[in-house]
Amino acid sequence: MPDRAAVATAGSEPGAAVMTAGFGACLAAAARRIDAHLGEVLRGFPDHTVTQAMIHAIRGGKGLRGFLVLESAALHDVAPGRAIWPAAAIEAMHGYSLVHDDLPCMDDDHLRRGEPTVHVKWDEATAVLAGDALQALAFELAAHPGAGPGGIRAELALSLARAGGAGGMVMGQALDIAAETAEVPLTLAQITALQAGKTGALIDWAACAGARLAGADPGPFHAYAAALGLAFQIADDILDVEGDADRAGKSLRKDMRAGKATFVSLLGLAGARARAAELAGEACEALAPFGARADGLRAAARFAISRDN
Amino acid sequence: MPDRAAVATAGSEPGAAVMTAGFGACLAAAARRIDAHLGEVLRGFPDHTVTQAMIHAIRGGKGLRGFLVLESAALHDVAPGRAIWPAAAIEAMHGYSLVHDDLPCMDDDHLRRGEPTVHVKWDEATAVLAGDALQALAFELAAHPGAGPGGIRAELALSLARAGGAGGMVMGQALDIAAETAEVPLTLAQITALQAGKTGALIDWAACAGARLAGADPGPFHAYAAALGLAFQIADDILDVEGDADRAGKSLRKDMRAGKATFVSLLGLAGARARAAELAGEACEALAPFGARADGLRAAARFAISRDN
Repeated sequence: MPDRAAVATAGSEPGAAVMTAGFGACLAAAARRIDAHLGEVLRGFPDHTVTQAMIHAIRGGKGLRGFLVLESAALHDVAPGRAIWPAAAIEAMHGYSLVHDDLPCMDDDHLRRGEPTVHVKWDEATAVLAGDALQALAFELAAHPGAGPGGIRAELALSLARAGGAGGMVMGQALDIAAETAEVPLTLAQITALQAGKTGALIDWAACAGARLAGADPGPFHAYAAALGLAFQIADDILDVEGDADRAGKSLRKDMRAGKATFVSLLGLAGARARAAELAGEACEALAPFGARADGLRAAARFAISRDN
Repeated sequence: MPDRAAVATAGSEPGAAVMTAGFGACLAAAARRIDAHLGEVLRGFPDHTVTQAMIHAIRGGKGLRGFLVLESAALHDVAPGRAIWPAAAIEAMHGYSLVHDDLPCMDDDHLRRGEPTVHVKWDEATAVLAGDALQALAFELAAHPGAGPGGIRAELALSLARAGGAGGMVMGQALDIAAETAEVPLTLAQITALQAGKTGALIDWAACAGARLAGADPGPFHAYAAALGLAFQIADDILDVEGDADRAGKSLRKDMRAGKATFVSLLGLAGARARAAELAGEACEALAPFGARADGLRAAARFAISRDN
């Protein structure tokens, strides 16, 4: 599939390419573009173990968050050359969170995207530092002059800091770690709040990036992202139970073994599937004002609940 | 010493308060102002272990980097109410680096600023997350609307990301970790390069923040910061050999026990002292164009080589 099939690179009407080329091809093309951009930026860094670990950590992701940036930017008629900076930023931020989450003192995971995790391939110090540097890189990319006028870049950096910090992603991760040793399993409301931070905050930032790049109100994209983020996490819980570790590229059945409450343990498999489908529908609905131009983002919501990795 | 004695809060001619109240009092007043500002911001965060660990980690620092921001801002006639945001940002960034540096897989330190380190007081996961959240907080503060116009905030965030990332502080830290297992001790040139990243990059950002806040050329402040940063690190190496652990509030004699090359092992104690004094002089000289208004920053350079913590 040539890169030009991707919505955000084609320069054609947003949403159209997804309909013709299929979502999987568009997502893969977006991920390739973002990987290439990150690779180019990282070639400017000192050739050091930490830089190699950073490259290892960001390679091979689905690129869903970056796709949301590119697609929401196209929806606002923002040039792809500007949108690639925050798209790369959110993938760097997501990559940092995975490297640190995989550490022995956190989730202690050895496999990620089908490859050994950073602390397994190198060591823990390298994983701490590569994650730290990826977070710094995320802000370098979000505030980069290529992304547009100063006021917009400041807003992108500020909102990314809030999404990633102790009021957003880190809080979700902290609640998740605490849940592992909690005596009483979490309730549905607690898991929903936890995931709104852990997974939801970065997805919200990605979906709102297009509006921010255009200096427009991200309003409707918050509702889209809230439904998409929750659907994504329910699908993750289903994948943890039903998935194939080779296809997923990471360890599965961990929550079940740990006896952690998940959307599946609380809703049952059928209930979880129904709730995920309902949320994907809500995500699509939230974009009604944008008509067919939002079909790429709608396809992302459907993808979130049907993926196998 | 009342807070208003500090240069940056007094609204008087920069440099003047240092001459009347003494540098120690001015530094302490600046540190109190920054601590209070950080405390206020953190009160808006969810009440969680990670937030408590963040507060623990940023409390009780010397505040030298924050002082450099406030003082360089005063030198450029930037309002203290704007400068407090990047001043708090650099202390959050410095705090994050200490929490992660103290981790068992890094320097494995148990004492910091006279208190147990975060992973000792809580656990490693909390330390990883608190450090991560402090880095995000640093960017939230640097890009905060209170700091001024969007273009300036974007520039502050961008330069902070570059100072903190794999081309700056993280690279210095990675070289330092690598040096611990190196078969051949580092040379003077290698240690100087290492420190330019590990300590120098954030000091450079702090010293240049005033010019950036004013939209002015940070040019002369790079030279000041390069000399100050190196002098600061040489003084750190002297402190590691000669210092009193109680006064320093951290473990000492670590480099010597580890057989690591330091400025002291390479230059001797007398040679290291002479070099530090020479560098402090160079730092003061670099500010010649600013006359007596830069006396506060000159006092900081002298403090850097005479401190006991």
